[in-house]
Amino acid sequence: MTTARLFDTHPGLTQAAGSRDVFAACIEACEQCAAACTSCADACLAEPGIAHLADCIGSNLNCADICATTARIVARQQGASKTVTLSLAELCAEVCRSCADHCEQHADSYEHCRICAEICRRCENACRELARELG
Amino acid sequence: MTTARLFDTHPGLTQAAGSRDVFAACIEACEQCAAACTSCADACLAEPGIAHLADCIGSNLNCADICATTARIVARQQGASKTVTLSLAELCAEVCRSCADHCEQHADSYEHCRICAEICRRCENACRELARELG
Amino acid sequence: MTTARLFDTHPGLTQAAGSRDVFAACIEACEQCAAACTSCADACLAEPGIAHLADCIGSNLNCADICATTARIVARQQGASKTVTLSLAELCAEVCRSCADHCEQHADSYEHCRICAEICRRCENACRELARELG
Amino acid sequence: MTTARLFDTHPGLTQAAGSRDVFAACIEACEQCAAACTSCADACLAEPGIAHLADCIGSNLNCADICATTARIVARQQGASKTVTLSLAELCAEVCRSCADHCEQHADSYEHCRICAEICRRCENACRELARELG
Repeated sequence: MTTARLFDTHPGLTQAAGSRDVFAACIEACEQCAAACTSCADACLAEPGIAHLADCIGSNLNCADICATTARIVARQQGASKTVTLSLAELCAEVCRSCADHCEQHADSYEHCRICAEICRRCENACRELARELG
Repeated sequence: MTTARLFDTHPGLTQAAGSRDVFAACIEACEQCAAACTSCADACLAEPGIAHLADCIGSNLNCADICATTARIVARQQGASKTVTLSLAELCAEVCRSCADHCEQHADSYEHCRICAEICRRCENACRELARELG
Repeated sequence: MTTARLFDTHPGLTQAAGSRDVFAACIEACEQCAAACTSCADACLAEPGIAHLADCIGSNLNCADICATTARIVARQQGASKTVTLSLAELCAEVCRSCADHCEQHADSYEHCRICAEICRRCENACRELARELG
Repeated sequence: MTTARLFDTHPGLTQAAGSRDVFAACIEACEQCAAACTSCADACLAEPGIAHLADCIGSNLNCADICATTARIVARQQGASKTVTLSLAELCAEVCRSCADHCEQHADSYEHCRICAEICRRCENACRELARELG
């Protein structure tokens, strides 16, 4: 768990240990989800049914960008704002939920959509957990 | 105005002309703000007073990432969600306001902070304008 | 020209004025190209001919990411390496050339591909100019 | 190993199994390195010795951006170019090597620099492995 190890080395660390785990879990779920959505969009582009996947691809691209940025913002403790982190965690959870819904529609046809939907749901939960911690 | 020209060529375009201008202005303000915050963080790193600028740099880095992602999400019409775009525009406005506040504290000492604060305020306004359009 | 104004405020600035213009032109061309490729990929997703555009979309997504990162790296003077900047400028020029080639194949059918190809060529040139400056 | 699982679901997959492992290892090393460099830059900002860390922070920020983009480009198979992937893998290896060198100078003083240097070396190796595979 590199993220958690590095989070703990920050000289200005203020979070209690339990809270740090919630932060670290959110960062890692976001990184994994960003990667999964990037790969799922790419796999969708190569499917014969691409014409029905346009919204799914757009949703994947948005989710990849939001998750990558959420991972960075949650990881940064310098100049951090609790209000911003909370709003972003809630927004990211919503984007992950929406992307999971898109991918689930194609989960029976495409294995990448099935895996990606699972990872999006996990990231949605990790973001909601962080939002609860901060709320 | 490349952004606006490209926005208009989208085959699924649904926004009225007035609304498109608000989208395009928000995208361009976010791109410019992301670039300014990246440069301001870099210039702060080279200042002799760097020890007092740590929060300003952290704030610049967060603002650069949020603005870059907001520009991409607002530009994408495929799989877009009005709720997500609205929340993100409000969040980005808040991040820009906070970064402008940080930079303004150093505006008398550092020209890059003075310019960056100005650009953050402009981006805050463009994001609020888009939020009003969608609200 | 915000980029150039901010570039000039860096306290560790070492480039001569003529060289700074080449840096600033490259940064701005990369930012514009990243935005154009993001929009073109999105517009391609909404075209009825999407099945023939999969490679063009993949190429747009790659070009958007490389150009966005090139803009950031070229803008950062702290910890910069001339070797890295030169290699990245050459790589970015190559990615822009390849994306322009993809988009040009559809320039007669799709206005977004025509505009995007133009912007990619411009960015390719700005990157080559920077590579010459550094080489 | 989500990355490898998703890589394998791509309908246009052309790489042999051994080659796919090299791609997946490079993607995961780049994602981890991007996260480590983001966290290390943030921790450096909070150190009392920040005035000596400015180049290390700049190097971390560049490495984070290059690694994040390399992970995306290597993961995308649609519209991929072997020449571009090879050049990018070599460039990313060089950026990781340089960032590891910076961090190692502070490894005795700062645990985050020690961990980050380790992760950068691992990513350098994974990128060189991919370059060999493609070369």
